Amino acid sequence: MPAANQQIHLAARPKGFPKPSDFRLVKGAIPEPADGQFLVGISYLSVDPYMRGRMNAARSYAEPQKLDEVMGGGAVGKVLASRHRDFAEGEYVSGFFGWQQYALSDGAGVTKVDPRVAPISTALGVLGMPGLTAYFGLLDICAPRAGETVVVSGAAGAVGSTAGQIARIAGCRVVGIAGSDDKIRWITRDLGFDAGLNYKTESLDRLKELCPNGIDCYFDNVGGATSDAIFPLMNTKGRASVCGQISLYNLAEPELGARLLPFVLVRTLTVKGFLVFQYAERYSEGLAQLTHWFQEGKLKYRETVADGIENAVAAFLGMLRGENVGKQLVRISELGVGS
Amino acid sequence: MPAANQQIHLAARPKGFPKPSDFRLVKGAIPEPADGQFLVGISYLSVDPYMRGRMNAARSYAEPQKLDEVMGGGAVGKVLASRHRDFAEGEYVSGFFGWQQYALSDGAGVTKVDPRVAPISTALGVLGMPGLTAYFGLLDICAPRAGETVVVSGAAGAVGSTAGQIARIAGCRVVGIAGSDDKIRWITRDLGFDAGLNYKTESLDRLKELCPNGIDCYFDNVGGATSDAIFPLMNTKGRASVCGQISLYNLAEPELGARLLPFVLVRTLTVKGFLVFQYAERYSEGLAQLTHWFQEGKLKYRETVADGIENAVAAFLGMLRGENVGKQLVRISELGVGS
Repeated sequence: MPAANQQIHLAARPKGFPKPSDFRLVKGAIPEPADGQFLVGISYLSVDPYMRGRMNAARSYAEPQKLDEVMGGGAVGKVLASRHRDFAEGEYVSGFFGWQQYALSDGAGVTKVDPRVAPISTALGVLGMPGLTAYFGLLDICAPRAGETVVVSGAAGAVGSTAGQIARIAGCRVVGIAGSDDKIRWITRDLGFDAGLNYKTESLDRLKELCPNGIDCYFDNVGGATSDAIFPLMNTKGRASVCGQISLYNLAEPELGARLLPFVLVRTLTVKGFLVFQYAERYSEGLAQLTHWFQEGKLKYRETVADGIENAVAAFLGMLRGENVGKQLVRISELGVGS
Repeated sequence: MPAANQQIHLAARPKGFPKPSDFRLVKGAIPEPADGQFLVGISYLSVDPYMRGRMNAARSYAEPQKLDEVMGGGAVGKVLASRHRDFAEGEYVSGFFGWQQYALSDGAGVTKVDPRVAPISTALGVLGMPGLTAYFGLLDICAPRAGETVVVSGAAGAVGSTAGQIARIAGCRVVGIAGSDDKIRWITRDLGFDAGLNYKTESLDRLKELCPNGIDCYFDNVGGATSDAIFPLMNTKGRASVCGQISLYNLAEPELGARLLPFVLVRTLTVKGFLVFQYAERYSEGLAQLTHWFQEGKLKYRETVADGIENAVAAFLGMLRGENVGKQLVRISELGVGS
């Protein structure tokens, strides 16, 4: 057990694609829980696309990440010491603990994780925020019906891979767009997507061929040129769930693109942006259903795991470049990795 | 009464902005009603933005206008002769009679117009399809709440002027965008819009000042640069009703524009395209409410009227250029103009 708590701070607001020097590794003392608090030894950190938005100065849906403070983010770990009546030493917990090795918590926004249900890392992926994002974004906004065609961009990410599998469970034809042959193999061979398109080696024009009946639902994690190719193929009364726009997050200047509103008009589309937090009251419903599918073997996942807090920034940057397959995690300590 | 029925046919599919030579004036015999038909003497033709879309070869939401056939379009007129049991000589009717002086009808899609309620021309405007478009597009899709800010583009057109007045009735702050000082005077002084912006002489940046609390609802008739300026000002959970995109209809090649999906995501917007035909089952509800507001003096209208079938094309082109204030009509005959 190290004598210090290593944290990653945001040192500067990135301009365009973040640089390692926008972050700083800081060593501090391991904190002691006060009354009503507990200390968590972090097992896994999550790095997620939404974090890039919080690094900008402008308020979006969340307050900006503060400079010279620990990077915010979800994590799972083990309670190492507790002066909180609801959390006992040895329990596994998930919460917004940040990019650090140890976190103090008063329990706000913390949920317990049962390591007998699934590996605790899934609380950051298929059985956590990304899984819930896929669940509500697909079922509530796209509301796909059996036989419809669903296209998922960012299909091999934590959210996209889950959204595609849920669309399969709903009886849809599912086409995934991702950026490597390995990703395409995974989503089509292991996850049951009907087809995949590697946008780095194939033309997006191939979507016409992969979606011979047009596109009824678009679950968008990526935006940009991908959306430009998809909207002209949308069917009348189609639905687009705007979950992410990762292709645009790191542009130093906004780029121009195809005008999409003419398709929204002529095809009478519904396009809706959402944040998983809007569904907070239905998390337990979503989590119960995701867990049920997981236990039935209908929902699979994959993880890309970096090792050590010192590699958190590289893992984050790699995720922004699409180097991960499935959920990108940072393993901080074996302490709380269960069993 | 002329001995011939003059019609306007589509002679060629326009490339970019339509030219007079894309149309042809054709003279034919005045038809005789067969059993189950009646003959309408047209009083007013409607020219509407949607007609431009139907002139293209590609199917959009409606079948393309056929070449060398009478231009389709709404009209009102008087039954001159009838062999239909539900329509009697002397009655006023509204229907999809086309750009011609006389039309045969079997009654399909035809509604009777009561000249005691309002001038019959309003059946093509505030108490007709444009009014219903404003009613459903604003109330059903934007669903504005009292105190919210609503921006209407194309605010001095038949649809926009009605949408803005309905938003005022709903208790909203209403800002209209239009293309002349006369239009701005009309919507702000006569129709009660809270503010107006002449996009031809003022910067769209002024919207920030006119909408100090941001924009909750956007009723879009225009698209293009106007939408580019509005989406960044949309508030969280804002709604955009995509009713028209007239700024883009006459482009020979699609233009690029600002990417709007990032705003849809971060502000969790709902953007919805619609066609008034989707609300066919609720037309009577809408028409009853519009008529009620009209009779209360809460719903005003203005018309720009061209005279004679030979000026229908010029009126249509002028409407596409935004030369009309309020509803653009073509007066065909005094025959059915009521009194």
